[in-house]
Amino acid sequence: MELVYKGKTKDVYKLEDGNVLLKFKDDVTGENGVFDPGANTVGLTIKGAGQSGLRMTSFFFEKLAEKKIPTHFIASDIDESSMTVKTATVFGKGLEVICRFRAVGSFLRRYGAYCEKGQPLDAFVEVTIKDDDRNDPPISKDALAQLGILTNEEYVVLEKLTKEISLVVKDELAAKGLELYDIKLEFGRDSEGNVMLIDEISGGNMRVYKEGQYISPMDLEKLILG
Amino acid sequence: MELVYKGKTKDVYKLEDGNVLLKFKDDVTGENGVFDPGANTVGLTIKGAGQSGLRMTSFFFEKLAEKKIPTHFIASDIDESSMTVKTATVFGKGLEVICRFRAVGSFLRRYGAYCEKGQPLDAFVEVTIKDDDRNDPPISKDALAQLGILTNEEYVVLEKLTKEISLVVKDELAAKGLELYDIKLEFGRDSEGNVMLIDEISGGNMRVYKEGQYISPMDLEKLILG
Repeated sequence: MELVYKGKTKDVYKLEDGNVLLKFKDDVTGENGVFDPGANTVGLTIKGAGQSGLRMTSFFFEKLAEKKIPTHFIASDIDESSMTVKTATVFGKGLEVICRFRAVGSFLRRYGAYCEKGQPLDAFVEVTIKDDDRNDPPISKDALAQLGILTNEEYVVLEKLTKEISLVVKDELAAKGLELYDIKLEFGRDSEGNVMLIDEISGGNMRVYKEGQYISPMDLEKLILG
Repeated sequence: MELVYKGKTKDVYKLEDGNVLLKFKDDVTGENGVFDPGANTVGLTIKGAGQSGLRMTSFFFEKLAEKKIPTHFIASDIDESSMTVKTATVFGKGLEVICRFRAVGSFLRRYGAYCEKGQPLDAFVEVTIKDDDRNDPPISKDALAQLGILTNEEYVVLEKLTKEISLVVKDELAAKGLELYDIKLEFGRDSEGNVMLIDEISGGNMRVYKEGQYISPMDLEKLILG
């Protein structure tokens, strides 16, 4: 199999049958050795982080499959830290879609004049473009259409799927006494052009709290799957 | 009359009849002595800038009145550098609404991965919140509703008026061989809660070019009214 992309937390290989293999690494995003799901740089390496993220991802992608929500997931091999997925084309150079249930992170940094830290938000969806040099700027539905990245029709699907998926995750966490503050998803088009969830769903993509205390990705996996 | 607010480029007085008087100053926004319509600081003082801005504003507000587009304009006194306007309530702590015909300024800084400098845009509208401490962040229709700043219905009116007004300005400039790249407008609610254009329309709120050369606000006024 051929290595096609070395990502911050995953490497991407092309398989001979046309599918793609994602190899989860022990690198996590953050700055100065502190984990931050919103960061653009690899902040630290945690032994077992890759397998832990893959276990969570497999768990949630299987839940989504039961609910007929389209994703790129085919199968996982936990021992190999790898996941086989369908080929996808990303929107433009890649988008991140965030669903927020509480005002924290970049939302609070931008709109702190109009909200309190931690204030509840109603499954608020926003999109940012993946562009490290420009600090992943937020982009509106109109701008996505104007720049030919996403049609208005695709945006409606993307927003609907984001809310559905985020609520599945929120409900799973709530059943364990955990609260989802926000979650970051990625989408792409499948071979027929339909919008589907890609990438992963793990503690590295979300902020989760228990009784007001932040839960780290690996602790989260133990609480959910352990 | 009572001074109620000292702005960067205008002072605001309350009149006894309930209306408001705006006094245009010779201070213009910019940085390090260079004019920049997108800047948050007063960059320099230009003798006559206030009167020049008021002449332009009166010219455009009268054009808009002819077209029945709602604005706060009542009358101007050029010699006194003052304009009488209706009382308005701003949305939240104030919004700026930008209409873009070419990709320059903050749009280019944010989305430069997806557009060329100066690329034509189709009367693209976006909103930023007035918040100097947070560098006037852009905000989406959904976020404006989520934070209770503007309803979805008001956003639709705001966007429609922004395009209409910007096209009036664009056409006036085009008739003089000038090209409007972008323009920044402000809106508020009148005493009955209806959306209307407030503030000013002058060279200080727009980027205008002639044969690829940027035209400064005072030169623009001479070209339009001189």
